[in-house]
Amino acid sequence: MKIAIAQLNPIIGDLPGNSQKILEMAIQAASKGARLLLTPELSLCGYPPRDLLLDPSFVEAMDITLQQLARDLPPNLAVLVGTVAQNLKAHITGGKTLFNSIALLEGGEVKQIFHKRLLPTYDVFDERRYFEPGSQANYFILDKINIGITICEDLWNDEEFWGKRSYPVNPIAELAVLGVDLIVNLSASPYTVSKQRFREIILRHSALRFLQPVIYANQVGGNDDLIFDGHSFALNRQGEMMCCARGFETDLVIVEFDEVQRDLQLGSVAPVYESENEEIWHALVLGVRDYARKCRFSQVVLGLSGGVDSALVAAIASDALGKENVLGVLMPSPYSSQHSISDALALAENLGIKTNILPIGELMQSFDHTLVELFAGTEFGIAEENLQSRIRGNLLMAIANKFGYLLLSTGNKSEMAVGYCTLYGDMNGGLAVIADVPKTRVYSLCHWLNRHGEIIPENILTKAPSAELKPGQIDQDSLPPYEILDDILQRLIHNHQSAAQIVASGHDAAIVDRVIQMVSRAEFKRRQAPPGLKITDRAFGTGWRMPIASNWVGVKNIYHNQTTPNLVCCVAEDTQEQIK
Amino acid sequence: MKIAIAQLNPIIGDLPGNSQKILEMAIQAASKGARLLLTPELSLCGYPPRDLLLDPSFVEAMDITLQQLARDLPPNLAVLVGTVAQNLKAHITGGKTLFNSIALLEGGEVKQIFHKRLLPTYDVFDERRYFEPGSQANYFILDKINIGITICEDLWNDEEFWGKRSYPVNPIAELAVLGVDLIVNLSASPYTVSKQRFREIILRHSALRFLQPVIYANQVGGNDDLIFDGHSFALNRQGEMMCCARGFETDLVIVEFDEVQRDLQLGSVAPVYESENEEIWHALVLGVRDYARKCRFSQVVLGLSGGVDSALVAAIASDALGKENVLGVLMPSPYSSQHSISDALALAENLGIKTNILPIGELMQSFDHTLVELFAGTEFGIAEENLQSRIRGNLLMAIANKFGYLLLSTGNKSEMAVGYCTLYGDMNGGLAVIADVPKTRVYSLCHWLNRHGEIIPENILTKAPSAELKPGQIDQDSLPPYEILDDILQRLIHNHQSAAQIVASGHDAAIVDRVIQMVSRAEFKRRQAPPGLKITDRAFGTGWRMPIASNWVGVKNIYHNQTTPNLVCCVAEDTQEQIK
Repeated sequence: MKIAIAQLNPIIGDLPGNSQKILEMAIQAASKGARLLLTPELSLCGYPPRDLLLDPSFVEAMDITLQQLARDLPPNLAVLVGTVAQNLKAHITGGKTLFNSIALLEGGEVKQIFHKRLLPTYDVFDERRYFEPGSQANYFILDKINIGITICEDLWNDEEFWGKRSYPVNPIAELAVLGVDLIVNLSASPYTVSKQRFREIILRHSALRFLQPVIYANQVGGNDDLIFDGHSFALNRQGEMMCCARGFETDLVIVEFDEVQRDLQLGSVAPVYESENEEIWHALVLGVRDYARKCRFSQVVLGLSGGVDSALVAAIASDALGKENVLGVLMPSPYSSQHSISDALALAENLGIKTNILPIGELMQSFDHTLVELFAGTEFGIAEENLQSRIRGNLLMAIANKFGYLLLSTGNKSEMAVGYCTLYGDMNGGLAVIADVPKTRVYSLCHWLNRHGEIIPENILTKAPSAELKPGQIDQDSLPPYEILDDILQRLIHNHQSAAQIVASGHDAAIVDRVIQMVSRAEFKRRQAPPGLKITDRAFGTGWRMPIASNWVGVKNIYHNQTTPNLVCCVAEDTQEQIK
Repeated sequence: MKIAIAQLNPIIGDLPGNSQKILEMAIQAASKGARLLLTPELSLCGYPPRDLLLDPSFVEAMDITLQQLARDLPPNLAVLVGTVAQNLKAHITGGKTLFNSIALLEGGEVKQIFHKRLLPTYDVFDERRYFEPGSQANYFILDKINIGITICEDLWNDEEFWGKRSYPVNPIAELAVLGVDLIVNLSASPYTVSKQRFREIILRHSALRFLQPVIYANQVGGNDDLIFDGHSFALNRQGEMMCCARGFETDLVIVEFDEVQRDLQLGSVAPVYESENEEIWHALVLGVRDYARKCRFSQVVLGLSGGVDSALVAAIASDALGKENVLGVLMPSPYSSQHSISDALALAENLGIKTNILPIGELMQSFDHTLVELFAGTEFGIAEENLQSRIRGNLLMAIANKFGYLLLSTGNKSEMAVGYCTLYGDMNGGLAVIADVPKTRVYSLCHWLNRHGEIIPENILTKAPSAELKPGQIDQDSLPPYEILDDILQRLIHNHQSAAQIVASGHDAAIVDRVIQMVSRAEFKRRQAPPGLKITDRAFGTGWRMPIASNWVGVKNIYHNQTTPNLVCCVAEDTQEQIK
């Protein structure tokens, strides 16, 4: 039996459009002799639909669309479609009113409905907000093949693999007991660095433990902050790779289930990426392309400072939308170095993008003049530094509004973490392209990009990073070196380490304390940041839910027997950090 | 037995500070002869602690603090403290690693721990993200009185009251079967308009159904977007009000449990508010005061446009922080009417707040001059309108940064809903004071405020609302009249009505479609808005989780047999709406 995987890129909520995409894939799959087509989790509405699920007319429309799709599908093709189903007993048994489900469409109708059993409610996932977990093992028989169905998380929680349970049940173990021939997993699993390798390890463990072939169908495409990488694949009973779809692209792949051997046969396996940098690059390009496309923008604008962050974002945008659709704006001030102009222009020439130069000196003077009485007797400081950044932010938004461009913001994760950025200034934009990329990784990506020749001008990669908001300023006046900062941030944010643990790993206690304070104090800025493309397991954004008015960081040292005084640090009290 | 309710106002994460507040209340309660002290849900860390709960050192510190508090408490006083507890079997049974718990402290130690059973995971609540539900009925015996314990949501889901179940179990019914003498409920229940009346109805139903006296202890204070109103109270077996703490203030009240009658005796009942407006006023004042205080600001700045929104926010801020701590900045442009200045100055005089006037004409010219070549041949439009708002936003942030003020933004809910506001312009601020107050309610609050004499100048209340970003502009050029707009928004946002249902209620179909499109299209702006004080059951903010790049609104009319064409509307594609 030929089984096709439709690796689809839905638009959230676009039910007729998504349904049409499933139909087109179904026609193609049928023409290639497939008997069964798999589509990703919630393929009808796209993942994640979020609070659209609270709109009853949305849920109703999904049902209408699903019924129509069932009637439109080619004959002799069974299709598994991701949709929601009503929990009709909710008012009696208690629980949420919806299930996250898979519908089996065959013979012009909805034949069967299967409900997701393990509902992720952590990081960016809010499934318990909307859904009730299914209580039964999910399987169906097609041409005498017993096919077990799992939905995303259902397959990710084998207690043998993890050494602990995260949910009371293990749906794969239940299916194995029932003696299915094959397990399919319909997913919407967001990209993070190296996640595909991890998926393969988990599913291989499952295949080997239960001696079951496994087919994994994943969504592809960018939806706001989330990038879905696709990479759908299939493993035989021995856990060997039998087929793999392309990463970061819509795809249709077919794998054959041999009814005699009761196992999958070898099909086409797309090449894997050579490096993490290559993988991240493709993720970010897809994230920008889809955010722009799904919001109906064809052109983007960004500020080019001559620095490495805006250089990388310009390169990503050029790849995503075409160099002719990218406008770089240079906005030099009296504090800008000559190389900030020449480096930015060299970059633009390498990329072939358009540029404009709008000096901001006159505007700085006008603001100074307007504020002269109010600010009389005060020193040049953070307020004046931020103003420069905000003048630039205003000019970019004026251009975006005037010509209908999407403004891309260019701040990296290290900056966003410690608040080394200006709210309503360089943070402006519809999408924060590299907000989850630490500064050290920004450099590494640029070096990778230059592997076949210069794209990012050498001087951009070798000069000391600077905000250029006052004479002679460099980032390291305010921040620890980025290698140190990024390591502290990794431990703090990703590994949930305490100050004491980070210090024990070899970092200076005063620097660790300062970084922890800065991260806490920047919460109010991050709350107002644009969506940032997520590439790690802990990004600022929808999965980062911190209080702003909080004093935990102010008191935590009490609990770690440190000699540093009780650091009372709170949001924006100390405007010292509102720099660049 | 005397039972005291400590209606506390914790700072999120400030474990030693919150612990100290509990201790002080305990000493006071003991001196008044209390045998038992109730504190709110999660009183040790404050509610909601959000992702601080993912920091293992935070959880560890809570335990240390709790043990120390137990040792410090006065003898002969039992205290119920809200804290988290580890789910030590999580790795075996599956489930989250924490419980949302109440600790019984007595005799210098933690005597017993009770776990919350119903975990709200909707709107602003994410409890399934962190907690595992408790599986046992919670009670303890103190001096032969059997006291049943419920935590917030545990008491809100009596299926008889609602006519349906929302959870599989009903903790109060279980306690009634066990024959407790009294039910206490320890809550952190955020304020919404008229919620206290609703709480009384629910708890009265419970008291009467199970013939149990009920004591309800609620948190008070503002934490980011959430305002907790306090209003702790107690009902006897007949559902009669025996005691009620003050609204919107820290309080300690004592109620007597008569051991012979097995019922509560009448204590002190704080007066109730006369009107919804009075209640909302106190909520917003507390929200501003606590956000400023907990973020360590003592002074605020805001733009005074001469319009009703900024007038109301200035009045709230003056009440919250003292008139001497409020600075109003007037920023007239060549399009500003004379009355915008005179009305703003009259307001400032009525309030007694400081003002500054910073005309923006020169800055507008400088931006025009800087952009003259790039914008050559284009018409004055949205870009130029937004620029004025952004110049003002920059000036306000410069002042905030220079003098360490908190900037308050002044947009109302109607504007935030349809995007009639400028991102990085009038949306700038650390706190959006009236972001959950519809425009019609803004007027109503101002009239209430003027009940004893003019505070908001009459002309501000009678003139047509205008953004004054081009000559002769009024809001109603772009928007339906606010009475109509607010009714449509209420049906759409709060009642989850479809376009067809809203039209059926008597609204014009074209207006309804336009409003629905505007709401969808403004999602990208709201994502970057400051926290807004929540006063309704559906506020934009932490409980509003919508996709940005979505096309549901673009296609929804297909499903409602309407004749309007498939409206392709998406974020910011049409910059027409980015006005004011």
